[in-house]
Amino acid sequence: MKVYDISMLINADMQVYKNKPEKKPAVTTACDFSNATVHESNLFMNVHTGTHLDANLHMFPDGSTIESIPLERLVGPARVFDLSHVEDGITKADLLPFNIQNDEWIILKTKNSFSEEFDFDFVYVKQDAAEYLAEIGIRGVAIDGLGIERAQPGYPTHKSLMNKDIYIVEGVRLKDIEAGSYFMVIAPLKLEGIDAAPARALLIGDWK
Amino acid sequence: MKVYDISMLINADMQVYKNKPEKKPAVTTACDFSNATVHESNLFMNVHTGTHLDANLHMFPDGSTIESIPLERLVGPARVFDLSHVEDGITKADLLPFNIQNDEWIILKTKNSFSEEFDFDFVYVKQDAAEYLAEIGIRGVAIDGLGIERAQPGYPTHKSLMNKDIYIVEGVRLKDIEAGSYFMVIAPLKLEGIDAAPARALLIGDWK
Repeated sequence: MKVYDISMLINADMQVYKNKPEKKPAVTTACDFSNATVHESNLFMNVHTGTHLDANLHMFPDGSTIESIPLERLVGPARVFDLSHVEDGITKADLLPFNIQNDEWIILKTKNSFSEEFDFDFVYVKQDAAEYLAEIGIRGVAIDGLGIERAQPGYPTHKSLMNKDIYIVEGVRLKDIEAGSYFMVIAPLKLEGIDAAPARALLIGDWK
Repeated sequence: MKVYDISMLINADMQVYKNKPEKKPAVTTACDFSNATVHESNLFMNVHTGTHLDANLHMFPDGSTIESIPLERLVGPARVFDLSHVEDGITKADLLPFNIQNDEWIILKTKNSFSEEFDFDFVYVKQDAAEYLAEIGIRGVAIDGLGIERAQPGYPTHKSLMNKDIYIVEGVRLKDIEAGSYFMVIAPLKLEGIDAAPARALLIGDWK
């Protein structure tokens, strides 16, 4: 059994969406040995920073919130596809060769995984690919960009997927992950009532 | 395969250590549909709130920090022990019957799991039990209290364990978990340089 960490490191210098300063996490010291007998820290972060799981509220005013996604739907087999040759965006034609099945978890490895700087032209999932995945009825999709789409007015990729309650994980790191089958665990913080949760994400190889 | 969520729900009303208000998490809205095209939230929390993994810096000024704990050490077999009969604190005598082995992960189910109010007399691991676990050289211990000790000047339980680099997870929820063997995943946020990280924790049953 081999465990692969596919999570983004969280710190003040990490890449964030469009380099917006308000998306940078901050850690402060709550107490230390100068004023207490223990050392404790506080964390402040936007829940869409780093590796995270979206909830439908992110896109829809009456959308479901993060606690509506049961943990057991985030744990199980997943396939990693190598799409690192794709420029711009992933299309339906890029996905067709993989014979994607209903209720599958898929993980999209793109050139996004090979840089820790935010790329304004990050590779994303184009509308036609999202509609194809929605039609199949996959369970969820993870991608190594901080967004699953960009430059599509009205967010049709997010909305096509969310309308079918297909889960979206953004910001995984896949540089060292080979294409293939794994046992996946997406472990978001157990928050409630909101639009996303930061997560630790891992793959287990040689698990069968 | 059955997935059991053993994490504490994170919200403004959750139990926190000694009911200290500064330990309560806060969620704020970063933007919503009144001023943006998406809904996003911010999270502020003490990293020792809810289910979390301690790092040695919590107790030692020169202690190692959270990123020093490799994810693969937090994933694997674990045993849950039913100690719900124990009052006050868990002693070496309480643990002897379980024949605990070197490099094991153990999970201590106590009466702490049966209340969502903070109990100032929560069940903890007494110094003699911690020294016994340190002598065995277990890999890690999880408990359903928000602390693994209380009322022990100088924190000998934390320090006995940390001196052997035995990992400590506090604040798991075990009410519905039967004693026995599981596949465990402790998934802390991928923070660095600090004294702990909030985590999602889960057990998988029927995994062999």
